[in-house]
Amino acid sequence: MTELPLQPKGALVIIGGAEDRQGDCQILRRFIRLSGGTEARIVVLTAGTSEPEEAGETYIEIFERLGAAIVWVVDTREQADANHIDAVRAIGQATGIFFTGGDQARIVERIKDTILEDAIRKRHQEGAVIAGTSAGAAIMPDVMIVRGESETSPRQDSVTLGTGMGFVSGILVDQHFAQRGRLGRLVTAILLQPATIGVGVDENTALVIEGEEFEVLGEGAVTIVDESGITYHNGDIAWEDEAMSVFNVKLHILSAGCRFNIHTRLPTAAPL
Amino acid sequence: MTELPLQPKGALVIIGGAEDRQGDCQILRRFIRLSGGTEARIVVLTAGTSEPEEAGETYIEIFERLGAAIVWVVDTREQADANHIDAVRAIGQATGIFFTGGDQARIVERIKDTILEDAIRKRHQEGAVIAGTSAGAAIMPDVMIVRGESETSPRQDSVTLGTGMGFVSGILVDQHFAQRGRLGRLVTAILLQPATIGVGVDENTALVIEGEEFEVLGEGAVTIVDESGITYHNGDIAWEDEAMSVFNVKLHILSAGCRFNIHTRLPTAAPL
Repeated sequence: MTELPLQPKGALVIIGGAEDRQGDCQILRRFIRLSGGTEARIVVLTAGTSEPEEAGETYIEIFERLGAAIVWVVDTREQADANHIDAVRAIGQATGIFFTGGDQARIVERIKDTILEDAIRKRHQEGAVIAGTSAGAAIMPDVMIVRGESETSPRQDSVTLGTGMGFVSGILVDQHFAQRGRLGRLVTAILLQPATIGVGVDENTALVIEGEEFEVLGEGAVTIVDESGITYHNGDIAWEDEAMSVFNVKLHILSAGCRFNIHTRLPTAAPL
Repeated sequence: MTELPLQPKGALVIIGGAEDRQGDCQILRRFIRLSGGTEARIVVLTAGTSEPEEAGETYIEIFERLGAAIVWVVDTREQADANHIDAVRAIGQATGIFFTGGDQARIVERIKDTILEDAIRKRHQEGAVIAGTSAGAAIMPDVMIVRGESETSPRQDSVTLGTGMGFVSGILVDQHFAQRGRLGRLVTAILLQPATIGVGVDENTALVIEGEEFEVLGEGAVTIVDESGITYHNGDIAWEDEAMSVFNVKLHILSAGCRFNIHTRLPTAAPL
């Protein structure tokens, strides 16, 4: 029997925003190392941000400082740019692909269903690492939080879901998690999208997914919201703007070194 | 066998701050109703606030508007004031006692171990309702969050615990819960104070405790953090300023009409 390669080969680095870019750059350093270290060829995708030149310059400077061999910026201001041969060729040679922050809807609008998307997906299967911070993290799964309200308890109208890039299945990512008080909107999102694991990523914190497992690194925590044990919720009868009730949500709060298996939904403590 | 009255007789109304004072005043109205409605004799305790005159005036106006028969303000600017005969006499006649917001440490400092405290406790046993908002909510249990950091994942140094007024046991209250992103500090508090149930109360939201049960009312939710199923945490080895890991925290998010039993730790849905 031949086993089909159902899992993409390259790692995913999902960063909760505001990653350190001045100090030891632990998270970005890990991304470069996974992408081949001094042989890393990095493409920075600035589709999310309204300041693509500034963001591009910033990440060129950092990734070169961290030792990458080559850093290209692919600036897709409209969807047509994402069918440009130069962009596609750059991806074809990349060992690491990095999505900046900004607006997650803009990233999907500009890159989804383009030749660039196909190239990214193919390159990921061949082993290239995909990383994204903030909006660039939100787009990773099949389904994403397009926008939502922070600092509220769960309410139907606290979150809007949409199609993500689909580099990983079975999870839903929220970023700036503790810093913006986003438990309520992540719980709401999970109720709207059953059988999905909520993954809230703090600032300057990341998860590195390889296969079915991920590891946490960085300063804060990754909060897992597991809905599999929920015994009651009134999401079907609550008004859109009304506080919802949910019983028996399971939470895991994972700091650096902890691992989590997306398939078995089991966390593992960091080695001592 | 004679059963000892282990539970105080009067209800406790624990309000997460910023309760409606302009509209239908649902929470304050309930407090007045529980205190006897048009026969309610209310004492407002302004010990928490740095603006006792303004706070006193505000609540006199509201409680009179809501139909209370008499509203007194007891302004304890220092602990000696809390041994004053007028204050003690007012409490002795009160059917409802209301703690304003402000600084929870100041309330405990000014009222704990005074004749006024004894009078409040005795009056509560006789059936008087005790209510408190914000800092006035935090002081209700045996142990309280004196101060802490919002919008962070759990860290040892994110919270400082201290002695509360002890009107209820077995819970620990945090206020402005969703609005200030306080999951992290409440989880930390629960790890520091095992066998205690974390109760995070949103703004314009309250729980009314009668016996072992409470009911939720108001606009937002009460979030229960139950540590009884925790399978792992590294609170004993994490540095004070380091993000902690915690596995299998149980959460219940309760909106208006839901009930919760503090003894059995079981939630009940609101009636349809």
